[in-house]
Amino acid sequence: MELSFEDKDLFVCCGSAKFARKMASAGPFRSYADAVSAARDIWFNQVDVNAWLEAFSAHPAIGQTASPAQSKNNTSAQWSKGEQSTALATASGSILQELSEWNVLYRQKFGFVFLICASGRTSSEILVELKNRYQNRPIVEFQVAAEEQMKITELRLAKLLSGKDHASSASDD
Amino acid sequence: MELSFEDKDLFVCCGSAKFARKMASAGPFRSYADAVSAARDIWFNQVDVNAWLEAFSAHPAIGQTASPAQSKNNTSAQWSKGEQSTALATASGSILQELSEWNVLYRQKFGFVFLICASGRTSSEILVELKNRYQNRPIVEFQVAAEEQMKITELRLAKLLSGKDHASSASDD
Repeated sequence: MELSFEDKDLFVCCGSAKFARKMASAGPFRSYADAVSAARDIWFNQVDVNAWLEAFSAHPAIGQTASPAQSKNNTSAQWSKGEQSTALATASGSILQELSEWNVLYRQKFGFVFLICASGRTSSEILVELKNRYQNRPIVEFQVAAEEQMKITELRLAKLLSGKDHASSASDD
Repeated sequence: MELSFEDKDLFVCCGSAKFARKMASAGPFRSYADAVSAARDIWFNQVDVNAWLEAFSAHPAIGQTASPAQSKNNTSAQWSKGEQSTALATASGSILQELSEWNVLYRQKFGFVFLICASGRTSSEILVELKNRYQNRPIVEFQVAAEEQMKITELRLAKLLSGKDHASSASDD
């Protein structure tokens, strides 16, 4: 088995152009595990902090549908909605309101969107996590957000590899 | 004794508008030590990573005279030259050439200028430090650079408090 990815598909997994370029060059990979291992090395050791901020900006606020940077990126917006499906199904109006208010506070403090691998988490769990992480020092939270981005990237790489999602990704472009 | 600072003087110490604003509001201070303590808290706990990047961009590359952001900021450029006086006095042409090449590599890897509290350091010492720090992971180096920025800020706060430099700072504006 040989896995190789194109820049544009990788950019949907992680919205940093530098990450996508380096990851595309690093392939082909022998397995999903090899691809994830390369992705982790590129993300944590090779791309700079501006690349992290660029990737964060590609995400909508939790509870919203798409970030400005995502308006041209249908696959990412669609996947983001899927990843938040548990949260959205369990959200009451008051929880959504509180999430929205804390998202604003979070962005004011840290300068980027609150990022969490939402897959399988309820909206209440996400709200608790948001309130906890709000207490962090900015540089600590920057690293926590980068870890969450990596979890999202791993999930999305797996989706790319599943034929159906890969096909739908291609047809979105 | 009561020390208070204006935004514009603080901005010369640390080129982040958010830092300068918060520090101006935090005063007046009873001593230099109190001012430094407040500055450390604001820099490390209150301003976000974008503020760090903004402050870094106010520095010239080591061995150069002024950054683009500094062209309107004569006091900072002048102080930067003073802080590098040992380095400049000890620099041979080949060391300056090597520093310049490593500065380029550093910026390519980390996405911001190589920042070091140059006061009292020779150009060879700075070059060794640059090569060592180039090995760091980007997030680690981001924090090292922020520590160096804080050392520079402390030196410059002290300069602000010395009447002569304070007067010359005011007359530059």
